[in-house]
Amino acid sequence: MFRFQPLGAVAVLLLLLTADGAIPPPEDAARMARFVLHTCDWGALATLSAQEGLHGYPFANIFSLSDGPPGPFSGSGVPYFYLTDMEISVQDLEINSNASLTVSLAQTPYCKKHRYDPQNPLCAHIIFSGSVVKVNDSETGLAKKALFSRHPEMESWPKDHNWFFAKFNITCIWVLDYFGGLKIVTPEEYYSVKP
Amino acid sequence: MFRFQPLGAVAVLLLLLTADGAIPPPEDAARMARFVLHTCDWGALATLSAQEGLHGYPFANIFSLSDGPPGPFSGSGVPYFYLTDMEISVQDLEINSNASLTVSLAQTPYCKKHRYDPQNPLCAHIIFSGSVVKVNDSETGLAKKALFSRHPEMESWPKDHNWFFAKFNITCIWVLDYFGGLKIVTPEEYYSVKP
Repeated sequence: MFRFQPLGAVAVLLLLLTADGAIPPPEDAARMARFVLHTCDWGALATLSAQEGLHGYPFANIFSLSDGPPGPFSGSGVPYFYLTDMEISVQDLEINSNASLTVSLAQTPYCKKHRYDPQNPLCAHIIFSGSVVKVNDSETGLAKKALFSRHPEMESWPKDHNWFFAKFNITCIWVLDYFGGLKIVTPEEYYSVKP
Repeated sequence: MFRFQPLGAVAVLLLLLTADGAIPPPEDAARMARFVLHTCDWGALATLSAQEGLHGYPFANIFSLSDGPPGPFSGSGVPYFYLTDMEISVQDLEINSNASLTVSLAQTPYCKKHRYDPQNPLCAHIIFSGSVVKVNDSETGLAKKALFSRHPEMESWPKDHNWFFAKFNITCIWVLDYFGGLKIVTPEEYYSVKP
Protein backbone atom coordinates (compact mmCIF):
# COMPACT_ATOMS: atom_id res chain seq x y z
CA MET A 1 0.00 0.00 0.00
CA PHE A 2 1.05 3.62 -0.46
CA ARG A 3 2.97 5.15 2.39
CA PHE A 4 4.02 8.75 2.47
CA GLN A 5 7.71 9.13 3.31
CA PRO A 6 8.39 12.78 4.09
CA LEU A 7 12.19 12.34 4.21
CA GLY A 8 12.28 10.69 0.78
CA ALA A 9 10.07 13.44 -0.59
CA VAL A 10 12.34 16.13 0.78
CA ALA A 11 15.41 14.40 -0.72
CA VAL A 12 13.78 14.29 -4.15
CA LEU A 13 12.68 17.91 -3.89
CA LEU A 14 16.21 18.96 -2.99
CA LEU A 15 17.52 17.09 -6.04
CA LEU A 16 14.86 18.83 -8.15
CA LEU A 17 16.04 22.19 -6.94
CA THR A 18 19.76 21.58 -7.35
CA ALA A 19 20.04 19.44 -10.48
CA ASP A 20 20.39 22.28 -12.94
CA GLY A 21 22.12 24.89 -10.87
CA ALA A 22 25.35 24.37 -12.79
CA ILE A 23 24.46 22.67 -16.07
CA PRO A 24 27.09 23.63 -18.67
CA PRO A 25 26.13 25.16 -22.03
CA PRO A 26 25.81 22.57 -24.84
CA GLU A 27 28.74 24.05 -26.77
CA ASP A 28 31.04 22.92 -23.97
CA ALA A 29 30.73 19.17 -24.59
CA ALA A 30 33.69 18.14 -22.43
CA ARG A 31 32.30 20.05 -19.44
CA MET A 32 28.86 18.54 -20.06
CA ALA A 33 30.36 15.03 -20.03
CA ARG A 34 32.06 15.76 -16.69
CA PHE A 35 28.89 17.34 -15.30
CA VAL A 36 26.60 14.44 -16.21
CA LEU A 37 29.06 11.81 -14.97
CA HIS A 38 29.48 13.65 -11.67
CA THR A 39 25.73 14.13 -11.29
CA CYS A 40 24.96 10.43 -11.75
CA ASP A 41 25.38 7.82 -9.01
CA TRP A 42 25.08 4.85 -11.35
CA GLY A 43 25.34 3.93 -14.99
CA ALA A 44 24.63 1.20 -17.51
CA LEU A 45 27.62 -0.88 -18.53
CA ALA A 46 27.78 -2.83 -21.79
CA THR A 47 30.15 -5.79 -22.03
CA LEU A 48 30.69 -8.67 -24.44
CA SER A 49 29.03 -11.66 -22.85
CA ALA A 50 31.20 -14.61 -21.85
CA GLN A 51 28.18 -16.73 -20.98
CA GLU A 52 27.65 -20.09 -22.62
CA GLY A 53 25.38 -19.70 -25.62
CA LEU A 54 25.75 -15.91 -25.60
CA HIS A 55 29.48 -15.61 -26.19
CA GLY A 56 30.29 -12.27 -27.81
CA TYR A 57 26.73 -10.95 -27.56
CA PRO A 58 26.27 -7.50 -26.05
CA PHE A 59 25.22 -7.51 -22.39
CA ALA A 60 23.85 -4.48 -20.50
CA ASN A 61 23.94 -4.22 -16.71
CA ILE A 62 23.61 -1.60 -13.96
CA PHE A 63 26.41 -0.51 -11.62
CA SER A 64 26.78 2.14 -8.97
CA LEU A 65 29.62 4.54 -9.69
CA SER A 66 31.23 7.72 -8.45
CA ASP A 67 33.89 10.10 -9.69
CA GLY A 68 34.24 11.71 -6.27
CA PRO A 69 32.28 12.76 -3.20
CA PRO A 70 28.91 14.39 -3.88
CA GLY A 71 28.63 18.13 -4.23
CA PRO A 72 28.01 20.70 -6.95
CA PHE A 73 30.22 19.74 -9.92
CA SER A 74 33.45 18.60 -8.38
CA GLY A 75 35.01 15.20 -8.90
CA SER A 76 37.83 13.62 -10.85
CA GLY A 77 35.91 12.55 -13.95
CA VAL A 78 37.05 8.96 -13.36
CA PRO A 79 34.11 6.53 -13.07
CA TYR A 80 34.98 4.27 -10.14
CA PHE A 81 33.16 1.00 -9.42
CA TYR A 82 33.02 -1.49 -6.55
CA LEU A 83 32.88 -4.94 -8.11
CA THR A 84 32.96 -8.63 -7.29
CA ASP A 85 33.91 -11.61 -9.44
CA MET A 86 30.51 -13.07 -8.56
CA GLU A 87 28.90 -10.49 -10.88
CA ILE A 88 28.02 -11.78 -14.34
CA SER A 89 29.34 -8.68 -16.17
CA VAL A 90 32.58 -8.83 -14.19
CA GLN A 91 32.99 -12.39 -15.43
CA ASP A 92 32.59 -10.98 -18.97
CA LEU A 93 35.26 -8.37 -18.25
CA GLU A 94 37.70 -11.05 -17.09
CA ILE A 95 37.56 -12.52 -20.60
CA ASN A 96 37.37 -9.19 -22.47
CA SER A 97 37.75 -5.93 -20.57
CA ASN A 98 36.34 -3.77 -23.40
CA ALA A 99 33.21 -2.00 -22.25
CA SER A 100 30.94 0.96 -22.75
CA LEU A 101 29.31 3.04 -20.04
CA THR A 102 26.37 5.39 -20.39
CA VAL A 103 24.95 7.95 -17.96
CA SER A 104 21.99 10.24 -18.55
CA LEU A 105 20.32 13.22 -16.91
CA ALA A 106 17.17 11.06 -17.24
CA GLN A 107 18.53 9.47 -14.04
CA THR A 108 18.09 12.79 -12.25
CA PRO A 109 14.96 14.94 -11.83
CA TYR A 110 16.36 17.40 -14.41
CA CYS A 111 14.64 16.01 -17.53
CA LYS A 112 11.25 15.49 -15.88
CA LYS A 113 11.41 19.00 -14.47
CA HIS A 114 12.05 20.49 -17.91
CA ARG A 115 9.67 18.04 -19.59
CA TYR A 116 12.42 16.69 -21.83
CA ASP A 117 11.77 13.18 -23.03
CA PRO A 118 14.63 10.78 -22.04
CA GLN A 119 15.43 10.43 -25.76
CA ASN A 120 15.37 14.20 -26.37
CA PRO A 121 18.96 15.41 -26.86
CA LEU A 122 18.35 18.16 -24.28
CA CYS A 123 18.02 15.39 -21.69
CA ALA A 124 21.79 15.08 -22.02
CA HIS A 125 23.45 11.71 -22.03
CA ILE A 126 27.03 10.59 -22.30
CA ILE A 127 28.56 7.42 -23.72
CA PHE A 128 32.03 6.27 -22.76
CA SER A 129 34.02 3.64 -24.61
CA GLY A 130 37.07 1.95 -23.13
CA SER A 131 37.76 -0.82 -20.66
CA VAL A 132 37.21 -1.65 -17.00
CA VAL A 133 40.41 -2.17 -15.03
CA LYS A 134 41.23 -2.89 -11.40
CA VAL A 135 42.45 0.13 -9.49
CA ASN A 136 46.03 -0.17 -8.28
CA ASP A 137 47.10 0.38 -4.68
CA SER A 138 48.03 4.04 -5.14
CA GLU A 139 44.52 4.87 -6.40
CA THR A 140 42.52 2.72 -3.96
CA GLY A 141 42.15 5.53 -1.44
CA LEU A 142 40.63 7.87 -4.04
CA ALA A 143 38.29 5.17 -5.36
CA LYS A 144 37.17 4.22 -1.87
CA LYS A 145 36.48 7.81 -0.86
CA ALA A 146 34.62 8.48 -4.12
CA LEU A 147 32.42 5.39 -3.80
CA PHE A 148 31.81 5.07 -0.06
CA SER A 149 30.92 8.77 0.32
CA ARG A 150 28.10 8.40 -2.20
CA HIS A 151 27.22 4.79 -1.58
CA PRO A 152 27.62 4.34 2.19
CA GLU A 153 25.82 1.01 2.00
CA MET A 154 28.87 -0.46 0.20
CA GLU A 155 30.87 -0.63 3.42
CA SER A 156 28.46 -3.24 4.77
CA TRP A 157 28.30 -5.44 1.67
CA PRO A 158 29.17 -9.11 2.33
CA LYS A 159 32.93 -9.50 2.85
CA ASP A 160 32.92 -12.99 1.31
CA HIS A 161 32.05 -11.47 -2.09
CA ASN A 162 35.66 -10.20 -2.34
CA TRP A 163 34.78 -6.71 -3.52
CA PHE A 164 37.45 -4.73 -5.31
CA PHE A 165 37.79 -1.20 -6.68
CA ALA A 166 37.82 -0.73 -10.43
CA LYS A 167 37.58 2.16 -12.86
CA PHE A 168 36.46 2.84 -16.38
CA ASN A 169 39.53 3.54 -18.47
CA ILE A 170 38.10 6.02 -21.00
CA THR A 171 39.31 5.97 -24.61
CA CYS A 172 36.45 7.86 -26.31
CA ILE A 173 33.47 9.94 -25.21
CA TRP A 174 30.28 10.83 -27.09
CA VAL A 175 28.07 13.63 -25.82
CA LEU A 176 24.43 14.01 -26.84
CA ASP A 177 23.25 17.25 -25.29
CA TYR A 178 21.80 19.24 -28.18
CA PHE A 179 20.30 18.91 -31.64
CA GLY A 180 22.61 18.03 -34.52
CA GLY A 181 23.98 14.68 -33.44
CA LEU A 182 26.61 13.28 -31.13
CA LYS A 183 29.74 15.26 -30.31
CA ILE A 184 33.03 13.45 -29.78
CA VAL A 185 35.21 14.44 -26.83
CA THR A 186 38.71 13.08 -26.28
CA PRO A 187 39.87 11.87 -22.85
CA GLU A 188 42.42 14.76 -22.88
CA GLU A 189 39.66 17.36 -23.35
CA TYR A 190 37.52 15.60 -20.76
CA TYR A 191 40.17 15.42 -18.06
CA SER A 192 41.39 18.97 -18.66
CA VAL A 193 38.02 20.44 -17.61
CA LYS A 194 38.24 22.35 -14.35
CA PRO A 195 35.03 21.77 -12.39
CA MET B 1 19.79 29.50 -11.02
CA PHE B 2 17.39 27.40 -8.96
CA ARG B 3 13.76 27.76 -9.84
CA PHE B 4 11.00 25.99 -7.97
CA GLN B 5 8.68 24.13 -10.33
CA PRO B 6 5.59 23.10 -8.38
CA LEU B 7 4.22 20.88 -11.21
CA GLY B 8 7.47 18.96 -11.54
CA ALA B 9 7.58 18.50 -7.77
CA VAL B 10 4.02 17.19 -7.70
CA ALA B 11 4.80 14.73 -10.52
CA VAL B 12 7.82 13.39 -8.65
CA LEU B 13 5.85 13.13 -5.40
CA LEU B 14 3.11 11.19 -7.19
CA LEU B 15 5.74 8.80 -8.56
CA LEU B 16 7.14 8.45 -5.04
CA LEU B 17 3.73 7.52 -3.73
CA THR B 18 2.80 5.09 -6.48
CA ALA B 19 6.08 3.37 -7.38
CA ASP B 20 5.79 0.58 -4.86
CA GLY B 21 2.05 0.21 -4.63
CA ALA B 22 2.22 -2.97 -6.67
CA ILE B 23 5.79 -4.22 -6.51
CA PRO B 24 5.74 -8.02 -6.88
CA PRO B 25 7.40 -10.31 -4.32
CA PRO B 26 10.97 -11.32 -5.27
CA GLU B 27 10.02 -14.98 -5.63
CA ASP B 28 7.89 -14.05 -8.63
CA ALA B 29 10.74 -13.11 -10.98
CA ALA B 30 8.68 -13.08 -14.18
CA ARG B 31 6.18 -10.67 -12.63
CA MET B 32 9.03 -8.52 -11.33
CA ALA B 33 10.50 -8.31 -14.85
CA ARG B 34 7.14 -7.21 -16.26
CA PHE B 35 6.66 -4.72 -13.41
CA VAL B 36 10.05 -3.05 -13.77
CA LEU B 37 9.80 -2.87 -17.57
CA HIS B 38 6.34 -1.33 -17.35
CA THR B 39 7.42 1.13 -14.64
CA CYS B 40 10.37 2.43 -16.69
CA ASP B 41 10.02 4.94 -19.53
CA TRP B 42 13.51 4.38 -20.90
CA GLY B 43 16.34 1.90 -20.83
CA ALA B 44 19.99 1.39 -21.70
CA LEU B 45 20.63 -0.57 -24.88
CA ALA B 46 23.89 -2.40 -25.57
CA THR B 47 24.85 -3.11 -29.18
CA LEU B 48 27.96 -4.28 -30.99
CA SER B 49 29.51 -1.18 -32.45
CA ALA B 50 29.74 -0.89 -36.24
CA GLN B 51 31.83 2.29 -36.01
CA GLU B 52 35.20 2.48 -37.67
CA GLY B 53 37.92 1.61 -35.17
CA LEU B 54 35.36 0.22 -32.71
CA HIS B 55 33.93 -2.62 -34.76
CA GLY B 56 32.57 -5.34 -32.49
CA TYR B 57 33.14 -3.35 -29.29
CA PRO B 58 30.23 -3.07 -26.87
CA PHE B 59 28.32 0.23 -27.11
CA ALA B 60 25.80 1.49 -24.52
CA ASN B 61 23.14 4.07 -25.34
CA ILE B 62 19.88 5.43 -23.92
CA PHE B 63 16.44 5.04 -25.55
CA SER B 64 12.91 5.89 -24.53
CA LEU B 65 10.65 2.86 -24.47
CA SER B 66 7.16 1.74 -23.55
CA ASP B 67 5.30 -1.53 -23.27
CA GLY B 68 1.94 0.20 -23.16
CA PRO B 69 0.15 3.30 -21.91
CA PRO B 70 1.07 4.38 -18.38
CA GLY B 71 -0.91 3.12 -15.41
CA PRO B 72 -0.45 0.76 -12.50
CA PHE B 73 1.09 -2.45 -13.87
CA SER B 74 -0.63 -2.99 -17.18
CA GLY B 75 1.13 -3.26 -20.52
CA SER B 76 2.14 -5.93 -22.99
CA GLY B 77 5.69 -6.61 -21.74
CA VAL B 78 7.02 -5.78 -25.21
CA PRO B 79 9.63 -2.99 -25.11
CA TYR B 80 8.75 -0.70 -28.03
CA PHE B 81 11.13 1.96 -29.38
CA TYR B 82 10.86 4.89 -31.79
CA LEU B 83 14.08 4.93 -33.79
CA THR B 84 15.81 6.63 -36.70
CA ASP B 85 18.64 5.41 -38.93
CA MET B 86 20.46 8.61 -37.99
CA GLU B 87 21.09 7.14 -34.53
CA ILE B 88 24.51 5.60 -34.01
CA SER B 89 23.21 2.50 -32.19
CA VAL B 90 20.58 1.95 -34.88
CA GLN B 91 23.41 1.92 -37.41
CA ASP B 92 25.01 -0.80 -35.24
CA LEU B 93 21.75 -2.76 -35.28
CA GLU B 94 21.58 -2.62 -39.07
CA ILE B 95 24.85 -4.59 -39.17
CA ASN B 96 24.08 -6.86 -36.20
CA SER B 97 20.64 -6.75 -34.58
CA ASN B 98 21.75 -8.58 -31.41
CA ALA B 99 21.29 -6.35 -28.39
CA SER B 100 20.78 -6.24 -24.65
CA LEU B 101 18.43 -3.93 -22.78
CA THR B 102 18.49 -3.08 -19.10
CA VAL B 103 15.95 -1.27 -16.93
CA SER B 104 16.20 -0.56 -13.21
CA LEU B 105 14.03 0.72 -10.39
CA ALA B 106 16.95 3.12 -9.82
CA GLN B 107 15.27 5.08 -12.65
CA THR B 108 12.24 5.60 -10.42
CA PRO B 109 12.01 7.16 -6.94
CA TYR B 110 11.54 3.66 -5.45
CA CYS B 111 15.18 2.92 -4.55
CA LYS B 112 15.92 6.38 -3.12
CA LYS B 113 12.74 6.19 -1.06
CA HIS B 114 13.78 2.86 0.45
CA ARG B 115 17.44 3.91 0.65
CA TYR B 116 18.52 1.00 -1.55
CA ASP B 117 21.78 1.65 -3.35
CA PRO B 118 21.36 1.34 -7.17
CA GLN B 119 23.64 -1.73 -7.03
CA ASN B 120 21.73 -3.31 -4.12
CA PRO B 121 19.72 -6.27 -5.48
CA LEU B 122 16.60 -4.91 -3.73
CA CYS B 123 16.79 -1.97 -6.16
CA ALA B 124 15.55 -4.44 -8.76
CA HIS B 125 16.91 -4.43 -12.26
CA ILE B 126 16.20 -6.51 -15.32
CA ILE B 127 18.43 -7.47 -18.23
CA PHE B 128 17.01 -8.59 -21.55
CA SER B 129 18.98 -10.32 -24.27
CA GLY B 130 17.71 -10.62 -27.83
CA SER B 131 17.53 -8.41 -30.88
CA VAL B 132 15.91 -5.19 -32.03
CA VAL B 133 13.55 -5.58 -34.98
CA LYS B 134 11.28 -3.25 -36.93
CA VAL B 135 7.63 -3.58 -36.02
CA ASN B 136 5.45 -4.85 -38.87
CA ASP B 137 2.31 -3.10 -40.08
CA SER B 138 -0.07 -5.15 -37.93
CA GLU B 139 1.76 -4.13 -34.74
CA THR B 140 2.38 -0.47 -35.60
CA GLY B 141 -0.84 0.70 -33.95
CA LEU B 142 0.07 -0.97 -30.65
CA ALA B 143 3.64 0.38 -30.73
CA LYS B 144 2.45 3.90 -31.55
CA LYS B 145 -0.15 3.91 -28.77
CA ALA B 146 2.38 2.52 -26.27
CA LEU B 147 5.05 5.08 -27.14
CA PHE B 148 3.09 8.26 -27.90
CA SER B 149 0.93 7.91 -24.76
CA ARG B 150 4.05 7.97 -22.57
CA HIS B 151 6.29 10.09 -24.75
CA PRO B 152 3.94 12.68 -26.26
CA GLU B 153 6.93 14.72 -27.45
CA MET B 154 7.68 11.99 -30.04
CA GLU B 155 4.80 13.11 -32.26
CA SER B 156 6.59 16.39 -32.91
CA TRP B 157 10.06 14.96 -33.60
CA PRO B 158 11.53 16.05 -36.99
CA LYS B 159 9.79 14.20 -39.82
CA ASP B 160 12.96 14.18 -41.95
CA HIS B 161 14.60 11.80 -39.46
CA ASN B 162 12.37 8.99 -40.82
CA TRP B 163 11.37 7.60 -37.45
CA PHE B 164 10.12 4.04 -37.32
CA PHE B 165 8.67 1.75 -34.65
CA ALA B 166 10.79 -1.12 -33.40
CA LYS B 167 10.68 -3.62 -30.57
CA PHE B 168 13.04 -5.67 -28.47
CA ASN B 169 12.62 -9.30 -29.45
CA ILE B 170 13.34 -11.00 -26.11
CA THR B 171 15.19 -14.33 -26.04
CA CYS B 172 16.38 -14.38 -22.40
CA ILE B 173 15.67 -12.39 -19.23
CA TRP B 174 17.75 -12.03 -16.07
CA VAL B 175 16.15 -10.62 -12.93
CA LEU B 176 18.17 -9.21 -10.04
CA ASP B 177 15.68 -8.37 -7.32
CA TYR B 178 16.96 -10.19 -4.23
CA PHE B 179 20.07 -11.64 -2.63
CA GLY B 180 21.46 -14.87 -4.03
CA GLY B 181 22.24 -13.90 -7.61
CA LEU B 182 20.45 -13.42 -10.90
CA LYS B 183 17.33 -15.41 -11.72
CA ILE B 184 16.66 -16.50 -15.30
CA VAL B 185 13.17 -16.04 -16.72
CA THR B 186 12.12 -17.40 -20.11
CA PRO B 187 10.13 -15.28 -22.59
CA GLU B 188 7.25 -17.77 -22.17
CA GLU B 189 7.15 -17.23 -18.39
CA TYR B 190 7.49 -13.48 -18.91
CA TYR B 191 4.69 -13.13 -21.42
CA SER B 192 2.34 -15.42 -19.52
CA VAL B 193 2.23 -13.04 -16.53
CA LYS B 194 -1.16 -11.43 -16.11
CA PRO B 195 -0.67 -7.85 -14.93
